[in-house]
Amino acid sequence: MNAVSAPWVRLVDLPTPTLSNNMADADRLVAALAKVLPAAPADIEFDLDLLRQLPALVRESRFRLRCTLFRDRDRWMITGIAGADDVRTAAGLAVDLGTTRVVLRLIDLATAKALTDHAFDNPQAAVGPDVLTRIHHAETAEGLRDLHALIINGLNRAIDTVCRTAGLQPRDISAMTVAGNTCMTHLFLGLEPRWIIREPYIPVINRPGVLRASDLGIQISPFGRVRVFPNIGSYFGGDLIAGILFSRLHRREDTAILVDVGTIAEVVLGNRDWLIGCAGAAGPALESGVTRMGMLAGPGVVDRVSIDPATGAFDIHTIGEETPRGICGSGVIDLAAQLFLSGMIDIRGKLVPPRCGDRLAIIDDVRHLVVVPAAQSATGTSLTISQADLDSLIRSKAAMYTILETLTMTVGLDWSQLNAFYVAGTFGCFINPRSAIAIGMLPDLPLDRYVPIGNSSLEGAARVLTAASAIDEIDRIRDRITYLELNVNQDFMNRFSAAKFLPHTDAGRFPSVKQG
Amino acid sequence: MNAVSAPWVRLVDLPTPTLSNNMADADRLVAALAKVLPAAPADIEFDLDLLRQLPALVRESRFRLRCTLFRDRDRWMITGIAGADDVRTAAGLAVDLGTTRVVLRLIDLATAKALTDHAFDNPQAAVGPDVLTRIHHAETAEGLRDLHALIINGLNRAIDTVCRTAGLQPRDISAMTVAGNTCMTHLFLGLEPRWIIREPYIPVINRPGVLRASDLGIQISPFGRVRVFPNIGSYFGGDLIAGILFSRLHRREDTAILVDVGTIAEVVLGNRDWLIGCAGAAGPALESGVTRMGMLAGPGVVDRVSIDPATGAFDIHTIGEETPRGICGSGVIDLAAQLFLSGMIDIRGKLVPPRCGDRLAIIDDVRHLVVVPAAQSATGTSLTISQADLDSLIRSKAAMYTILETLTMTVGLDWSQLNAFYVAGTFGCFINPRSAIAIGMLPDLPLDRYVPIGNSSLEGAARVLTAASAIDEIDRIRDRITYLELNVNQDFMNRFSAAKFLPHTDAGRFPSVKQG
Repeated sequence: MNAVSAPWVRLVDLPTPTLSNNMADADRLVAALAKVLPAAPADIEFDLDLLRQLPALVRESRFRLRCTLFRDRDRWMITGIAGADDVRTAAGLAVDLGTTRVVLRLIDLATAKALTDHAFDNPQAAVGPDVLTRIHHAETAEGLRDLHALIINGLNRAIDTVCRTAGLQPRDISAMTVAGNTCMTHLFLGLEPRWIIREPYIPVINRPGVLRASDLGIQISPFGRVRVFPNIGSYFGGDLIAGILFSRLHRREDTAILVDVGTIAEVVLGNRDWLIGCAGAAGPALESGVTRMGMLAGPGVVDRVSIDPATGAFDIHTIGEETPRGICGSGVIDLAAQLFLSGMIDIRGKLVPPRCGDRLAIIDDVRHLVVVPAAQSATGTSLTISQADLDSLIRSKAAMYTILETLTMTVGLDWSQLNAFYVAGTFGCFINPRSAIAIGMLPDLPLDRYVPIGNSSLEGAARVLTAASAIDEIDRIRDRITYLELNVNQDFMNRFSAAKFLPHTDAGRFPSVKQG
Repeated sequence: MNAVSAPWVRLVDLPTPTLSNNMADADRLVAALAKVLPAAPADIEFDLDLLRQLPALVRESRFRLRCTLFRDRDRWMITGIAGADDVRTAAGLAVDLGTTRVVLRLIDLATAKALTDHAFDNPQAAVGPDVLTRIHHAETAEGLRDLHALIINGLNRAIDTVCRTAGLQPRDISAMTVAGNTCMTHLFLGLEPRWIIREPYIPVINRPGVLRASDLGIQISPFGRVRVFPNIGSYFGGDLIAGILFSRLHRREDTAILVDVGTIAEVVLGNRDWLIGCAGAAGPALESGVTRMGMLAGPGVVDRVSIDPATGAFDIHTIGEETPRGICGSGVIDLAAQLFLSGMIDIRGKLVPPRCGDRLAIIDDVRHLVVVPAAQSATGTSLTISQADLDSLIRSKAAMYTILETLTMTVGLDWSQLNAFYVAGTFGCFINPRSAIAIGMLPDLPLDRYVPIGNSSLEGAARVLTAASAIDEIDRIRDRITYLELNVNQDFMNRFSAAKFLPHTDAGRFPSVKQG
């Protein structure tokens, strides 16, 4: 156990009290901790109820203690005390608080090892699928209270689940980290989100810091603390700061870019000297909501598609190799790329009936392409993608590309100057950069520049529980980001229009993409 | 309203949010406060529930706010927010948490004016009159919980009372300061006092710092904070630190001494460069418990006595000049001095029957002196002091003098080098130095050296609510005191024996005291 691998657990031997060393119990513990922590003793704090247990605990443990700790800037908080020989696991919990999906990782704080992951649909979806409908609901009587209770109760159920899986008790969790977008963060804290979506777009708070779990109704240790990742503003949330932390973009000597693909496309460009970020609406197409068969990652979900350009035969891969029952966001990008490369859609993204053959179906007067026929589907009905879905996807990928182009141009850089291109996706499926290039969502760079990093929000949240320096980096990243307001002006619209083709009006920009 | 007279109330005008100034509400307030407070904005904190009210509040108040604040070292806490025009009083409460008596002062934080004082008997007296019996009770099942609940409930009732008197609501109180001895402080916090009285005498905590009122069950503002004065150790409590703060001993260029007269005699000697303190048992005689007629200050309580040496006639003064019903601690000292000066007791403190005349009574085979005959007493029975009471008083005054002598000798000073002699008493009656000298409890210094300062514990607690610098001085005082362990060795016992005469074996030390 050392400072690098286990920043939040410390073993301490206290000197036994004598007449010549008659410090108070708390002072004695603080003095011993001060020797092993990089902080002045004045900054080590106790909860009153923990202090109430201290005298009996130190004497039963013969003054040899295992302390769990957490930190808010220069204030250390003691979140748990046990005898040095206590065998119970000291655990932490990292949470990616997604609008659609919430993902948790339980971590052994002493070994920095992941114990188990778990995901559940954000229960606020019962109120509305997106940020906007939830904010409107929060403005009704009891609406905010409902939304807050939905996510807190959902988290408490999930905490029970992960603890059962790992053979722990919720009270064994003493630290929790939460990364989400600004709206999800507000609803998690029970804060009025009303002004986030109204000009001039004002959050209640950008730096929630470290809170008591009990103040939030989170049922972990009564002394547990929750570090909520800070926002940059209404449209640039803590999930992306967690992503930067995980990607280490902020520590690179050369320049790189990080893009988080979702309904809101969030992009950060920079290196260890500067960071510039922007965010813009990309539409729901890049989330699982693009098609009626769209869903989040899970067994039976299509995550990879390839189409033989010669025969038009589909090769479908599903998670767990189970019978297909839906398709995830990255699967949709794969599908669109393959449809384009095989000529089944044209450069405008329109289905080409002669090439689609018997995979074409007309449902409700709209053309659909059958991805999985009913007979091979787990649902008993065919899995299809409609022309409307494809149109929506084209708009989303065009928005994504235009945002990337605008940000890169703004700082006077060329694509070739980006030495790494981190692609985060929050659906559990990793985006295939080759497919994203094929549809012109991402620029045509050598594939080795692309680093798919999956759920970087969760990974960043987890990092804070396992690495000593991470908690300080959060605020440093936040304070270093320059936020670029995307002015959707005529230039932007021109670029957007040019990007609404597959892969682009200017095909010369995508030399590697060859339609079959 | 300025920083000196109202350290805890601030008016702030926030810039109105615009697209080019779209800071979060909390950041906006913190930035505005940072301009008027001596702290970095990172150190200004909110409770979550206050943050939940913030967006509506700032907009209803058109961004002009009145904030109440409190502080723990360099951490400022926002304890209340109202519109700048809010007419409700922002109040603070100072508490002297005595073993026997609890005294409160309600203060207007904006004007630094006292609104009302109130006192009540410590309800823990139902369990036991002194620290020792209460600590033993705390070791029984539910004993500590009982004692904690008794004082918290008593304080909540008293808070209701002072608020009614002043026309306020308990929620208008946002800051509270509490000064008490180490045991009372522990019981107030619900902390195990068990090890305070057992070698090597270890408190749970010496620096409780600033706590949430709600964590203690104190019913003031839900965002209210409680500053508990720190202890030096098990026998040197926060009440004396409050006393030093009030007396300004720690700011004097020349050397002075502060003595807090009670069951435990606490003494501090020093100046702005150094402070040395000690504490020792003086016995109950200097509290109201010395005699069956002993009581705390209140209407009808004898606080001054003089006896005509020629005629033996008693001149009795009572508080409120009401019919006498008891005598307070300082009244007993006055009485003993007058009995001695009039020859009614001898230099050993023994009643002299020929001089006492018909004031002498034998009750239960013990000699008593009738201070107030039954016919003139409010109780219908005579108020008397017994030989045993007087013996006990002699021992207490001898202990007091010996402690003073030992401390002063230890630092190599002479009485004459003490330029001020602060005498604190916690019974509401001011000790008359002339009487204390007459019985040899205090040294025979020019009377103008003596400064009776009354309830300096309450006054010190109140100072923190009314003066900007006081909160920082608490820790500075605490950290500067050297605690002298009083080794009760043969030298001490010899000195104590010599002090068991009136005024002293060496009458030459008390040239001003002449028996009639």
